[in-house]
Amino acid sequence: MKVVVIGGSAAGLSAASQVRRLASDAQVVVLEKGRDLSYAACGMPYNLFFRDTPVEALYALSYDTIVNGRKIDYRLRSEVAAIDPMRQKVQVLDHVNGRVYEEGYDALVYATGNRPHRLDLPGFDDENVFYFKTLEDTRRTKEFLYERAPKTALLVGAGYTNLELADVLSNIKIRTVLLEKAPAILPAFCPAVREKVEEKLQEKGVEFFAGVDIYEKAGNVVKTSAGDFAAELVVAAVGVRPATEIFAAAGGLLGVASAASVNPYLRTNLPNVFAAGDCAEHYVRQLGRNGYMPLGPVANKQGRLAGSNLIHPDNMRRFSGIDQTAVFKFFDLTIGTSGLNERQLLGKDAAYATVIVDNDTRVAYPGGGRMRIVLFVEKGSGLLLGAQMIGQDVVAKRLDVLATAIYKGMTVFEIAELDLSYAPPYAPVWDPVLVAANQAIKMA
Amino acid sequence: MKVVVIGGSAAGLSAASQVRRLASDAQVVVLEKGRDLSYAACGMPYNLFFRDTPVEALYALSYDTIVNGRKIDYRLRSEVAAIDPMRQKVQVLDHVNGRVYEEGYDALVYATGNRPHRLDLPGFDDENVFYFKTLEDTRRTKEFLYERAPKTALLVGAGYTNLELADVLSNIKIRTVLLEKAPAILPAFCPAVREKVEEKLQEKGVEFFAGVDIYEKAGNVVKTSAGDFAAELVVAAVGVRPATEIFAAAGGLLGVASAASVNPYLRTNLPNVFAAGDCAEHYVRQLGRNGYMPLGPVANKQGRLAGSNLIHPDNMRRFSGIDQTAVFKFFDLTIGTSGLNERQLLGKDAAYATVIVDNDTRVAYPGGGRMRIVLFVEKGSGLLLGAQMIGQDVVAKRLDVLATAIYKGMTVFEIAELDLSYAPPYAPVWDPVLVAANQAIKMA
Repeated sequence: MKVVVIGGSAAGLSAASQVRRLASDAQVVVLEKGRDLSYAACGMPYNLFFRDTPVEALYALSYDTIVNGRKIDYRLRSEVAAIDPMRQKVQVLDHVNGRVYEEGYDALVYATGNRPHRLDLPGFDDENVFYFKTLEDTRRTKEFLYERAPKTALLVGAGYTNLELADVLSNIKIRTVLLEKAPAILPAFCPAVREKVEEKLQEKGVEFFAGVDIYEKAGNVVKTSAGDFAAELVVAAVGVRPATEIFAAAGGLLGVASAASVNPYLRTNLPNVFAAGDCAEHYVRQLGRNGYMPLGPVANKQGRLAGSNLIHPDNMRRFSGIDQTAVFKFFDLTIGTSGLNERQLLGKDAAYATVIVDNDTRVAYPGGGRMRIVLFVEKGSGLLLGAQMIGQDVVAKRLDVLATAIYKGMTVFEIAELDLSYAPPYAPVWDPVLVAANQAIKMA
Repeated sequence: MKVVVIGGSAAGLSAASQVRRLASDAQVVVLEKGRDLSYAACGMPYNLFFRDTPVEALYALSYDTIVNGRKIDYRLRSEVAAIDPMRQKVQVLDHVNGRVYEEGYDALVYATGNRPHRLDLPGFDDENVFYFKTLEDTRRTKEFLYERAPKTALLVGAGYTNLELADVLSNIKIRTVLLEKAPAILPAFCPAVREKVEEKLQEKGVEFFAGVDIYEKAGNVVKTSAGDFAAELVVAAVGVRPATEIFAAAGGLLGVASAASVNPYLRTNLPNVFAAGDCAEHYVRQLGRNGYMPLGPVANKQGRLAGSNLIHPDNMRRFSGIDQTAVFKFFDLTIGTSGLNERQLLGKDAAYATVIVDNDTRVAYPGGGRMRIVLFVEKGSGLLLGAQMIGQDVVAKRLDVLATAIYKGMTVFEIAELDLSYAPPYAPVWDPVLVAANQAIKMA
């Protein structure tokens, strides 16, 4: 059995490792285009802050562990140029040795990730414009940051990455401006969360402009519909696109958002080709259909499952799906969502109530903060459809309680009955989650 | 409608407040034996650490809020000496004015809490022996601590309270010894948790002796089967007993652990008398019967429900029960449990597996720690029966994910499918909860 994996990051290395676990005699080849081992991409913004921590600290495993420990034939700077699905071979551009070769496979895992949209505008290919998608981008951004010591940064696009960067850059005293083309920040979040984000931007002196069209970059000035902005450093994070060109060129079927279309077992339409991670579709349980939400946990889960299923083709397991849980840090706030968001709710027929509850996170012990919980609750049934949180102290793992409730289809009546942990260092006697559920009961 | 509540702390004040919310014209009298308003009892150990924070900072509400805001006739130092269930009157000893009077009721809430077992041994009535159950105890202990500045403390009994105190006292540089009569610390926890507690005791220089019989206290020396111990300050926390004497004397039926026996609506056998909180039984969902677990959240929930049910006797709601969730802080560790413990599991027929998983709480971000998760899983079905955790970083609210799973009767197969939040400041990409569930799947 010979397994080839295209792409050596989260999904790819998970797949390769799972193949090794289940089939000690299989040959496992990972073809990674870049120069970096699998890394924790979500940790990249924070790495900028720690000048003396090399970006390679984000590697998930060492080369030795991958190659000698897990016996994976992991080849860096090995770009796949084409897949021949009939002959079950890939064409590899070996950038280390400057040669081209073919590699045959019995099963292939396509795990190429995604790529950032680039701004096709004058000046946005300058050396001080970064897209901050790969570890190589992070390496270059960090070098620029500490060698050139810019005093101003312009962040284009107000999604998770740039909000995390706004936090980090502000903390290293770089004056930061955030521009967003859409009329509001964080479109997946409701206004009750967004207003708290905007308050924090203001408090921290990060200027934010929404509904902005960018015209061009001329030297260190970016011209926009909101005026000119000084920008010694520009980071553009304006969306991503699954890296599915090679797959599509081989006849691979694309689905949601141009991601590789996968069936419940993560198989694509090409024989013996699976797809996983940021280049693939992700089944959304609540919607009952595939969506696209490229995040680390789903990449790891899909990679592992693809590895299992290709080894056990007669006993494949279905990918159970996601509940769209996502969280990020923003200054002293944590911001998270799970389940359906308002855009998705407005597309459904069911009537729902929005419950917004503000709470202290501790009462009889120092160190707590404030937290806002927003619940979207189906009218009549009380079913929890979605939850969003923003606040201080422990937010992410409180959100997980509601993610669990969403997974299990719990109502707010049930959530109010939960026996959640209480001691003064951790919670008020009525945990904010219970307070929110009790409030929701009145409106359900 | 006139409602009398005996006991003005968590359950009592919750009941009174709920009556006021639901029946603005009801007369609500709270008879509190002590001199303190309702307080957060779980915060008492920590208050000792903060010399300048008065113990009254633990009051849940101000007198003004209770009396003028909520229109509750809240009477301090008003001890109920007897209940006459036929005439629906209570006899009150008014210690403020030195008089005795009767107060009639249409409905009565019995919410007297519990009392500590006292050590009936020579010397254990000395002024430097504390039982640390009430705010008054805390006040006296704190005065002693800062005015007499003891250098050694002897803690008798190794339950939650004394472990919390060991933490606090060590932090104010008092040499602390912990004695336990039972052969091991924390009997509700499994050995995999206990060994971590004992490691921490050792690390922090708190001497611990199990299986110790205490003989007497002579001056500042306590004589035991493990030798003599210096003890300028002694705190005995060797169990509690529900304060149900007055209730029983009136013909009230006692149940588990001598707590007031209650039906699902929190009614007792006495007409129009409800019981709630630390003096009452608590329905344990997994056992399908009443138990006794005197903790803050259940007291608040039961108090509120008793208040609702006495106002709406024709539309009473059942107390949904508890899942035995408990958590406490111990130095840099958090220790928690939810669901069935090993003693309870050994009493059941079902075969179960114990899964122990150690994990980092963060990988690509500083500030994390180590965490141990123990799962008790039913063999065959994979049903999660119980969970215990000990570790650093965010433990309590991770335990809540498993408390939610236990409430809903989830299997480890389902838990492994949860879409839990991930970002480097909060978790590894595989949250320890998912790692534990995946490990459990192999053994289920």
